[in-house]
Amino acid sequence: MSDSPFNDALADLEPPDRGSLTEAALRQKTLTKPPGSLGQLEDLANRLAGMSRSVPAPVPASPLVGVFAGDHGVVAEGVTAWPQEVTAQMVANFLAGGAAINTIARQVGATVVVVDAGVATDLDPHPQLVDGKVRRGTSNLAREAAMSEEDVRAALELGARVALEATGDGADLLVTGDMGIGNTTPSAAVIAALCGRDPADVVGRGTGIDNATLAVKTRAVRAGLERLGAQQAPISVLSEVGGLEIAALAGFIVAGASARVPVVLDGVISLAAAVAATAIQDDVRDYLVAGHRSVEPGATVALDHLGLRPLIDLDMRLGEGTGGCLAIPIVQAAARHVAEMATFASAAVTDRTDA
Amino acid sequence: MSDSPFNDALADLEPPDRGSLTEAALRQKTLTKPPGSLGQLEDLANRLAGMSRSVPAPVPASPLVGVFAGDHGVVAEGVTAWPQEVTAQMVANFLAGGAAINTIARQVGATVVVVDAGVATDLDPHPQLVDGKVRRGTSNLAREAAMSEEDVRAALELGARVALEATGDGADLLVTGDMGIGNTTPSAAVIAALCGRDPADVVGRGTGIDNATLAVKTRAVRAGLERLGAQQAPISVLSEVGGLEIAALAGFIVAGASARVPVVLDGVISLAAAVAATAIQDDVRDYLVAGHRSVEPGATVALDHLGLRPLIDLDMRLGEGTGGCLAIPIVQAAARHVAEMATFASAAVTDRTDA
Repeated sequence: MSDSPFNDALADLEPPDRGSLTEAALRQKTLTKPPGSLGQLEDLANRLAGMSRSVPAPVPASPLVGVFAGDHGVVAEGVTAWPQEVTAQMVANFLAGGAAINTIARQVGATVVVVDAGVATDLDPHPQLVDGKVRRGTSNLAREAAMSEEDVRAALELGARVALEATGDGADLLVTGDMGIGNTTPSAAVIAALCGRDPADVVGRGTGIDNATLAVKTRAVRAGLERLGAQQAPISVLSEVGGLEIAALAGFIVAGASARVPVVLDGVISLAAAVAATAIQDDVRDYLVAGHRSVEPGATVALDHLGLRPLIDLDMRLGEGTGGCLAIPIVQAAARHVAEMATFASAAVTDRTDA
Repeated sequence: MSDSPFNDALADLEPPDRGSLTEAALRQKTLTKPPGSLGQLEDLANRLAGMSRSVPAPVPASPLVGVFAGDHGVVAEGVTAWPQEVTAQMVANFLAGGAAINTIARQVGATVVVVDAGVATDLDPHPQLVDGKVRRGTSNLAREAAMSEEDVRAALELGARVALEATGDGADLLVTGDMGIGNTTPSAAVIAALCGRDPADVVGRGTGIDNATLAVKTRAVRAGLERLGAQQAPISVLSEVGGLEIAALAGFIVAGASARVPVVLDGVISLAAAVAATAIQDDVRDYLVAGHRSVEPGATVALDHLGLRPLIDLDMRLGEGTGGCLAIPIVQAAARHVAEMATFASAAVTDRTDA
């Protein structure tokens, strides 16, 4: 790998193959089912063919979720009821296999890779932990730039490196995951800035805050956005109001797209990263799959901005990649039905009389 | 098994255990995640504890989809563009492993059992085919009773027998599946009759019919319902306007509930059967999980009637059990997170400061 996996990924990124997408759609019509009867599953299957440039698209067999962790200076404003130490404690929980993402990843056969993008405290080394700490948490985005543009670039490189190593080792589907106490605040700010929305449209209750804390959180986002002004360059946005795990996820997403694997997005933190990634290079969008719709209002703003319809909508708001992992079997089933179904001709099934 | 597995199932049916459900909900609060952050997954997990009477509930490891096939005399009215012979051809396709349900079942690790409840033609014996043919298709429900009440009872017994044999052999989650050219017509009629709705509210486009055929289909349902009159006894409804696979599925559902396993419903045919099953014995409802929301309007009417929120909503309308099977990993993940997650105490994670 070069010194700049992120730049390599940008250079390698190509739009999906329209020919494969069209060929997959035509193949759908020959399969033993009424045309269109698998709904969104068919559209997804066709998109997978375009991403992989093959018909049928391969059925993802080695999914991997990258859980990027970072801390946030904005917690000093009182935007969350959870103490910052929980970020590091949850990283330990991921590595011990006891968090929600571990149980769901086990259920769907996904590998969990935990990445320290910027946890505030030192973490003990662990074989499953990627030590990519760019800095010990961000600064308080309500008062000053969350990080420098150099920090943003380092985080983008980190995320791209993790994605390219994963796909190089055989991962054929990536899920975005996150951990960071306070990280719905920078996510809301990034989405508001890049989607041109007011903080009130995107700030949500995160882990379950009360009205007073919601007002504090909205003020923090508004302060960051006022300092940012009309500036919409994604690196500037990430620097002023972003987060280390958000920037790293943006790099992970860009590199996943460059490797032509589906990138399944989790909730609002992942969506903030995806909005930033597509602002850097719009072709990334064609490799994105929305795993689920988080209840955070910013998630729906970002999904609409990205033009994505989520596969699952179960009022989840945990993050970690849980909603993304839960969608993996749906992505696999989408690819699999095209790969394995009989045709009307091969199964000697009569097609409809008006076909 | 006795001569009447359906009556055995009715006798054995018990409501879920409220104590286990409450205990599961309390356990949720100790797990290392913000309370409520897994949304509907948590509610489902708690329900599974109630069904199984244990906390944690076992993670379903041996799911089985019963695909019940039957033919429908109402096709003589011209309610569908598909010839009746396709029912038998698709049964052969299921047995050869080439249909959509086979590919999705393989993806999620579910066993497929195909049951001839009333296909119009003779079928060749096959080790995976249950020959339960009650009669060679129904009569035309637009003109006369679809079948006798004795036929309904025979189909209920068939479905119950398949479910009890499956659970006896270790199946710990059942999915309802169907095949039958024309079967959205009796499904709409059963739902209209038992939910007290007008045919126009429930009749849909099935495999994709045009406006003229939709009008024919609505008239056929209306004719059947007019003959039925105010009669709402479920056996009478199934006899006048039902289908053999619908009645068999109702038996399958009742027996699955009596075996205390989650019964995951597919689309509108399965929902018609579930509405009939709950009309026979309302306690069945507590064991039902709505796998997905079919685009058929009758599906949403039935889901509302049953008080169920579907796990997946992807514009599917294929049947066969495809939407139900696609939801299996979500049910497994629901059970699994409660069974395997660390607690705040065991993982030494600090709980929120206002908890």
